[in-house]
Amino acid sequence: MPYLMIGVMGPGETASDHTIQQAYQLGRLIAQQGWVLLSGGRNTGIMEAVSRGAKAADGLVVGILPHSDRSRMSAAVDIAIVTDLGNARNNINVLSSDVVIAFEGSMGTLSEVALALKAEKPVILLDWSEQGRSYLRAIAPHLSIAADPDEAIAIAAHLLKSESQTS
Amino acid sequence: MPYLMIGVMGPGETASDHTIQQAYQLGRLIAQQGWVLLSGGRNTGIMEAVSRGAKAADGLVVGILPHSDRSRMSAAVDIAIVTDLGNARNNINVLSSDVVIAFEGSMGTLSEVALALKAEKPVILLDWSEQGRSYLRAIAPHLSIAADPDEAIAIAAHLLKSESQTS
Amino acid sequence: MPYLMIGVMGPGETASDHTIQQAYQLGRLIAQQGWVLLSGGRNTGIMEAVSRGAKAADGLVVGILPHSDRSRMSAAVDIAIVTDLGNARNNINVLSSDVVIAFEGSMGTLSEVALALKAEKPVILLDWSEQGRSYLRAIAPHLSIAADPDEAIAIAAHLLKSESQTS
Amino acid sequence: MPYLMIGVMGPGETASDHTIQQAYQLGRLIAQQGWVLLSGGRNTGIMEAVSRGAKAADGLVVGILPHSDRSRMSAAVDIAIVTDLGNARNNINVLSSDVVIAFEGSMGTLSEVALALKAEKPVILLDWSEQGRSYLRAIAPHLSIAADPDEAIAIAAHLLKSESQTS
Repeated sequence: MPYLMIGVMGPGETASDHTIQQAYQLGRLIAQQGWVLLSGGRNTGIMEAVSRGAKAADGLVVGILPHSDRSRMSAAVDIAIVTDLGNARNNINVLSSDVVIAFEGSMGTLSEVALALKAEKPVILLDWSEQGRSYLRAIAPHLSIAADPDEAIAIAAHLLKSESQTS
Repeated sequence: MPYLMIGVMGPGETASDHTIQQAYQLGRLIAQQGWVLLSGGRNTGIMEAVSRGAKAADGLVVGILPHSDRSRMSAAVDIAIVTDLGNARNNINVLSSDVVIAFEGSMGTLSEVALALKAEKPVILLDWSEQGRSYLRAIAPHLSIAADPDEAIAIAAHLLKSESQTS
Repeated sequence: MPYLMIGVMGPGETASDHTIQQAYQLGRLIAQQGWVLLSGGRNTGIMEAVSRGAKAADGLVVGILPHSDRSRMSAAVDIAIVTDLGNARNNINVLSSDVVIAFEGSMGTLSEVALALKAEKPVILLDWSEQGRSYLRAIAPHLSIAADPDEAIAIAAHLLKSESQTS
Repeated sequence: MPYLMIGVMGPGETASDHTIQQAYQLGRLIAQQGWVLLSGGRNTGIMEAVSRGAKAADGLVVGILPHSDRSRMSAAVDIAIVTDLGNARNNINVLSSDVVIAFEGSMGTLSEVALALKAEKPVILLDWSEQGRSYLRAIAPHLSIAADPDEAIAIAAHLLKSESQTS
């Protein structure tokens, strides 16, 4: 059995300080659960923060990089997957994740939420505007919404348990 | 100079009859403008309707296929690009389009709208719910919204003109 | 029915003058047959030469670009497919071609020959070293070898005819 | 610093018993060096054997899967990267590897050798025919050739050492 992988998606350069702190905390909690963290792997925004958080708790960190080399990679990445696919790599991010947790704030992340829902992956929204949450819930009623990293982890644990029982 | 290409995105199997009629009409109008039509190329939903519409008006029809062969391709496609990339091909759809026109109704289309906005492509929404339009406008104020295929064509013509003057 | 597409693969920057002349002539002949030309679309080497040749004979020219925009595209390309996939786009080149004609001289081209053979596409080698031809023949006995552009066209016509009769 | 990753490429269904034994042994040796193993991840041929070998020596095993799910994955894979890219994923295999070791025997592998050389990755051939080795050496003089898994490991160790000194 492969390791359980939690994909965390969110903005790069435009992430707010609050979101970055949440992502760091989320990374720590993911590692403490014994789950592998997967992200877009870059050294900026949510990708950097969640990777550093997981690393701080001795987690294993996978980065799915959009570029042709490791030059803009988070130093916290353990397993560097170099795709050279640009944003086409977003589909790999979601297909490789057992659960996707997404922070609002970039078009790349919105594309990942849509691709995850299309692939019927469990998706948890964290730190989204009321408007964003409402729209996505309207088109994907089974979507989960978490108030903070602790709740996101609790929901993910529940989803993973349900999944392993049905498969 | 390559031909101007208009990408039309929209749901496959789940498209409504009204949307399908609009897509057919949009395809006709695109061809009448002398533009090349680009779509996801499958023989279902918006892809099939817009391709048949363009073909009926003697247009050139490009299909960017997700599968490894042409087996589920619209018979109206002239230029079949076989990608075998699944939904990763969505990014090619938007990067190859001068203007993207999107019908609401599927997660694949939502991913294409997000990827198009990320790539700074002009995007025109056609036939979207109030909630969907409002959310996307909130996160992408420069997004265009058309009431019907005629208005979508008028907006596209205006956008292409502005673009050619600035580049 | 989509147009018949002939994919021509070959080196970019490192192409010799002789090969470039052959590629130009091959492009002309492809267009004269009424076939669509597909290539990697860049403004260098075989891609540039074969595209200009096809254009000179009023052919339709498709370019499958590796980059995220059209900045290094041959001016002879009519249909620009912008992939942002780097060399992963090589697989699209061969999957989208009814017949692949390959000039020796770059690792990218060798990857395309291998991917084409894997996909069971008809492959014609043009202007290869004795050593290269022998090795590829040893591992792919059904591979075709042409002495010049005219022979490549004759073989392609024959292969397309056989294919349409069996399918 | 990410883990060092050794990519092992080779045929799936058509691998010989001898090659499969060599791949198993190679996987063991890679894990014993503390390197991470990367392969195409399928449950057949070289991919299965090298993954089981690495696993038997408590190694970490990354599989870059061509399909849209994990259904045909080697049970020895720890980190499953689900690409849904078909053979376009071959480019990810080589870009993500610090050193590529390739067994002869399939068109997919030949494409990976070519893509690795194009990306200027160190490549080691193991268990190739005289004709295959000679041709690839002629077009890529810096290519390494190993007589058995032990020598492949020795060459890889040397290449990784040289690389870390120059970078």
